[in-house]
Amino acid sequence: MLASTAVGQDNLLNVARSLFSPIPKRAADLDGNPATLEKLELGKMLYFEPRLSQAHNISCNTCHQIGRAGADGRSTSIGHNWQRGERNAPTVFNAVFNIAQFWDGRAADLTEQAGGPISNPTEMGTTPRHAVEELKGIPGYVEAFGKAFPDEIDPLRYDNIARAIAVFEATLITPNAPFDRYLEGNENALTTEQKEGLRLFADKGCSSCHNGINLGGSMYAPFGVFEKPGWEFLPPDDKGRIEVARKVDDDYVFKVPTLRNVALTAPYFHSGHAWDLEQAVAVMGTTQLGTQLSPEEVDKITAFLKALTGDQPKVTYPTLPPSVATTPRPEP
Amino acid sequence: MLASTAVGQDNLLNVARSLFSPIPKRAADLDGNPATLEKLELGKMLYFEPRLSQAHNISCNTCHQIGRAGADGRSTSIGHNWQRGERNAPTVFNAVFNIAQFWDGRAADLTEQAGGPISNPTEMGTTPRHAVEELKGIPGYVEAFGKAFPDEIDPLRYDNIARAIAVFEATLITPNAPFDRYLEGNENALTTEQKEGLRLFADKGCSSCHNGINLGGSMYAPFGVFEKPGWEFLPPDDKGRIEVARKVDDDYVFKVPTLRNVALTAPYFHSGHAWDLEQAVAVMGTTQLGTQLSPEEVDKITAFLKALTGDQPKVTYPTLPPSVATTPRPEP
Repeated sequence: MLASTAVGQDNLLNVARSLFSPIPKRAADLDGNPATLEKLELGKMLYFEPRLSQAHNISCNTCHQIGRAGADGRSTSIGHNWQRGERNAPTVFNAVFNIAQFWDGRAADLTEQAGGPISNPTEMGTTPRHAVEELKGIPGYVEAFGKAFPDEIDPLRYDNIARAIAVFEATLITPNAPFDRYLEGNENALTTEQKEGLRLFADKGCSSCHNGINLGGSMYAPFGVFEKPGWEFLPPDDKGRIEVARKVDDDYVFKVPTLRNVALTAPYFHSGHAWDLEQAVAVMGTTQLGTQLSPEEVDKITAFLKALTGDQPKVTYPTLPPSVATTPRPEP
Repeated sequence: MLASTAVGQDNLLNVARSLFSPIPKRAADLDGNPATLEKLELGKMLYFEPRLSQAHNISCNTCHQIGRAGADGRSTSIGHNWQRGERNAPTVFNAVFNIAQFWDGRAADLTEQAGGPISNPTEMGTTPRHAVEELKGIPGYVEAFGKAFPDEIDPLRYDNIARAIAVFEATLITPNAPFDRYLEGNENALTTEQKEGLRLFADKGCSSCHNGINLGGSMYAPFGVFEKPGWEFLPPDDKGRIEVARKVDDDYVFKVPTLRNVALTAPYFHSGHAWDLEQAVAVMGTTQLGTQLSPEEVDKITAFLKALTGDQPKVTYPTLPPSVATTPRPEP
């Protein structure tokens, strides 16, 4: 009996290792955008830099907070002029491991993503040209871009703003979750309930979409494979990826979100209208798997999901270079 | 000639020491609100906590940013529903050394101040009752308040929110500015121009109001002793301290602001409409001293003010406890 349980657990670990990978202790360099200390420090400053917004009051960290698992805990974020975004702000933590960025995958990678919100009229509300003028008006940034991009004649450019931010974002990873320790061979890292949840997660088919290093972030799927969710979770006007990739057959296709740190990042779904993780699990059962999960099954899967909370990044708040008399001023 | 210069410098140091004091390396405990590690950690979390605002998107750090010398670089801040504040957000750095808080001194100390913006309808826009309900809905805060206020039956109260924040704010001090090193006896810590600026600062009378540890923050003064500034700097409807302390004879009396880190905290004055430190110095000359400072004098005084930039606090961004399904949700 003991032997059989041990074999069962060994099998479960093998199944898990075939589906998932642990978060590495250190992130790798981004393609074509190698990390240097100077670029990383600059990227961290820019991540906290509200002068990249029209009114100088919104930074990357406003909607992707370092202290809140890289998200903001709202259904949709509040941007320039108190406008609401259309989709829930996804976590920036471990985003480097996603196949693409944004809910609809419209940015190929972090470098392509990072410039988006800055010049989105409903988010930070500035323009690429003004963002560059702003930073060129701050002597500390002129110097920092020169050091971060030492071989370039004109280093303070919009694409380099995004490159530096992306290099910082790539360091925002959360290794050492109980599930990572389990994958690395520590079978005691998960509780019995969490292991039962892991088995259900694989057996019921959750892992068909939520797999890989991020338990998500590796593919696209329609929301509502078996049954469309209620419109509160699936607003009819947001048809998802079809507006990016016209070849997609189905409406309402979105990138499968990561489940890393999911216990810290309510509310859920692209609409951000599911506030309860257990409810979100149950809705996934009916809409994506055609299965009415029992309350016990939901509890076990949720217990497993809580084992995906890793070590949160320790970030020292950067001191930002001061504006001077000639620095472009914020919109009043 | 050398001897006479040396005596002159020695005299200057003595004059300086009679007017000013260096920032200590460590802040002292607040009266009636002793710091403990647990209270400090809690206060740091609350300082970065947007769930203390009605829409869960504004924290203390929004307007008093750790990376921007404790201020936000706007004339007046943007609060709940994109409302503008009435006065420039003063720096929180070294605020513990001020005789009172807010531009009009309406809060006696940091502990009294810290609860103000949370429940100000134009700032964070929540209420004391709702702020407490919010935090009581977050298990991690229930635990943290219990540890920070271990002898209390009901530790999670609005006044304790303010106490914890105040304890953290009291650590936000900036020692080791060149001027501090000068006051401590290192006569080479100031450049010749900065010493000339210091002498002018004392001789012209700036130090009549801007004195003590914070070069300000120790008294109240009317804006426009000799000559009222233009209305762009002195909005007619904001009569200052008279609305707090009816016994004050004059309109337009405000707390003299600290000049610590002033080179980092443009724009200036309670209206926040002076963006150029040299312009602000010149305006002070005409309005407060009845003196038209020459451009050379303005340059020297400004050079001295730049010697007031101290070591900026190093703050590790706190990981905030997660909301759960029953936590009160933000206003959409």
